[in-house]
Amino acid sequence: MTNKLYMLAAIDAAWEYQGLTYPNPAVGCVVSKNNQILSISAHQKAGTSHAEVLALVEALEYISGRVVEFDKLNATLSHKFLRSLPKDFFADCTMYVTLEPCNHDGATPSCASLLIDLGIKNIFIAKLDPIDGHGGGAKRLEESGCTVSIGLQEKEAQELIEPFLIWQKRAFVLFKLAQTINGNINSGIISSLESRIHTHKLRSVCSLMAIGGNTVRMDNPKLDCRLIDEKAPNIFIYTKDESSINKSSLMFNVVNRNIVMGDNLDFLHIPSFVLIEGGIGMLEALKNKIDWVLFYSAPVIRGSGISATRQSSFKFLHCKKTENDLIIWSRFDGK
Amino acid sequence: MTNKLYMLAAIDAAWEYQGLTYPNPAVGCVVSKNNQILSISAHQKAGTSHAEVLALVEALEYISGRVVEFDKLNATLSHKFLRSLPKDFFADCTMYVTLEPCNHDGATPSCASLLIDLGIKNIFIAKLDPIDGHGGGAKRLEESGCTVSIGLQEKEAQELIEPFLIWQKRAFVLFKLAQTINGNINSGIISSLESRIHTHKLRSVCSLMAIGGNTVRMDNPKLDCRLIDEKAPNIFIYTKDESSINKSSLMFNVVNRNIVMGDNLDFLHIPSFVLIEGGIGMLEALKNKIDWVLFYSAPVIRGSGISATRQSSFKFLHCKKTENDLIIWSRFDGK
Repeated sequence: MTNKLYMLAAIDAAWEYQGLTYPNPAVGCVVSKNNQILSISAHQKAGTSHAEVLALVEALEYISGRVVEFDKLNATLSHKFLRSLPKDFFADCTMYVTLEPCNHDGATPSCASLLIDLGIKNIFIAKLDPIDGHGGGAKRLEESGCTVSIGLQEKEAQELIEPFLIWQKRAFVLFKLAQTINGNINSGIISSLESRIHTHKLRSVCSLMAIGGNTVRMDNPKLDCRLIDEKAPNIFIYTKDESSINKSSLMFNVVNRNIVMGDNLDFLHIPSFVLIEGGIGMLEALKNKIDWVLFYSAPVIRGSGISATRQSSFKFLHCKKTENDLIIWSRFDGK
Repeated sequence: MTNKLYMLAAIDAAWEYQGLTYPNPAVGCVVSKNNQILSISAHQKAGTSHAEVLALVEALEYISGRVVEFDKLNATLSHKFLRSLPKDFFADCTMYVTLEPCNHDGATPSCASLLIDLGIKNIFIAKLDPIDGHGGGAKRLEESGCTVSIGLQEKEAQELIEPFLIWQKRAFVLFKLAQTINGNINSGIISSLESRIHTHKLRSVCSLMAIGGNTVRMDNPKLDCRLIDEKAPNIFIYTKDESSINKSSLMFNVVNRNIVMGDNLDFLHIPSFVLIEGGIGMLEALKNKIDWVLFYSAPVIRGSGISATRQSSFKFLHCKKTENDLIIWSRFDGK
């Protein structure tokens, strides 16, 4: 039960950064010692420390009661720091990782190499890395004398990396819908600031945002990342009639942004992360292209809920209660 | 972090039986040893073993690898069994309880007495019992030499017992709404079997169900507890025109049931648990009477969502992803 609870804590931590790690997978990690949790961490952004590295640095912080003086998101500095610790510093620790530690020595040595060098003796891995040529970390750890247990909460860990598996081979298409609990999506600002910041983070990491022509014509949004002061995403406006789009709409005035229009969706064949923001019309029009739907549900009943012309079905994958809203990740099952 | 995670596990376990413990509070308990979880349990039903008792019996089952041969929901048998164990059997265990152990020796000795006699040396209590004359358990445990820590995740534990605090002095009014994720409540069977069984359990323990006249006229439901084979609840039909209610509607044919009609809501002054099932009209008509709203949200978009004539606001308190649906407990904030 303890191991299960700890792995679920690692999985929950990873969901906090779902999508935001693009093109990397969402990965969470818990470090414990004598069954006491030292840290619960997750990979946050591609190019920064992996979950295991962050979790080990934070475990050290917890043990020492002091915050490290370098940027722990910097993988090179974190690796260097961890290797500078007394040998066997983490030897009595147990790690819970949602995905097999990486085995590729690149800009920094692989996580598998690091864990072996740190003398980690006990690790739970929820899911082996399913990408050809990525695996082998677990095997190397085992060969180094580490006890490796594979498959704890594997189903949940598998769902966690679905986007990662998809964007290996084509666009992962995430449809975002901000609504009240009664399904209203048209009544001004619906979501909390926390939810809107989350959306801006997704916008800032996605390869491309897609919207419908109606969104431009009726809402005239900027669709930038002003809440986190990051570069606005490029935009694809899905329309059969480009002349109907007013080129002086607000989104056209955002700097450093490309906007493309049309109804050719061939770009979805390219490995990428496409974020769609739109209403029920867009959801129904693109239903065969959508992988997941992200609902932000606000604690309000007002106006009228979405009217659907046909049924759409989902599988709820993860639900998080934030201070105000629910953030609900779901797989689009179509129908 | 470990203590927090364990208390949150106890709180989550208690939410599973929210409302179902009426007139008792929802209480959860975790037992650990050397920081390893032995059991995660919750009080399930008034008249049966309290959370602490169930958790200790289940901890014993976990340690011994054997299921006890008596009904562990039977408080008398469970108390007797626990007292028959070798002295100090649980001495090294730590308990996490969401509410102060009861201090009233009645049909069975109080939980506080039991824990003292079992020699429990370490207990975390999220919330002291706020009812006059109920408290004192923590103090007695402390005086017996037990280390008592109070206030871990107190806010969450406080929300958990809100219904209990309300039904001490008047009716706790829970409005149940089964909807699709787009707020549709009128498209046949909406919720999963798991959700409907949960509703039938709530019906079987509530003091009274309240519905609107339209529910009788338009839906003609039975409103019984057939899925769990329990006695159907008595019903209050809120209507200004009793003659408009067809007395041969299905709900009138359910045995062992009283049905009362009218628009006098004075009965809400009586300490009790009133479950309302209805649509947006009923929600808006009774908005000043409703304490909490329980949403079952199904992973489907179809038809049209609720149309509200005015805004209703909520605070989400707890959200659970079941196999199919979300079960969302919320406080009604009106507006």
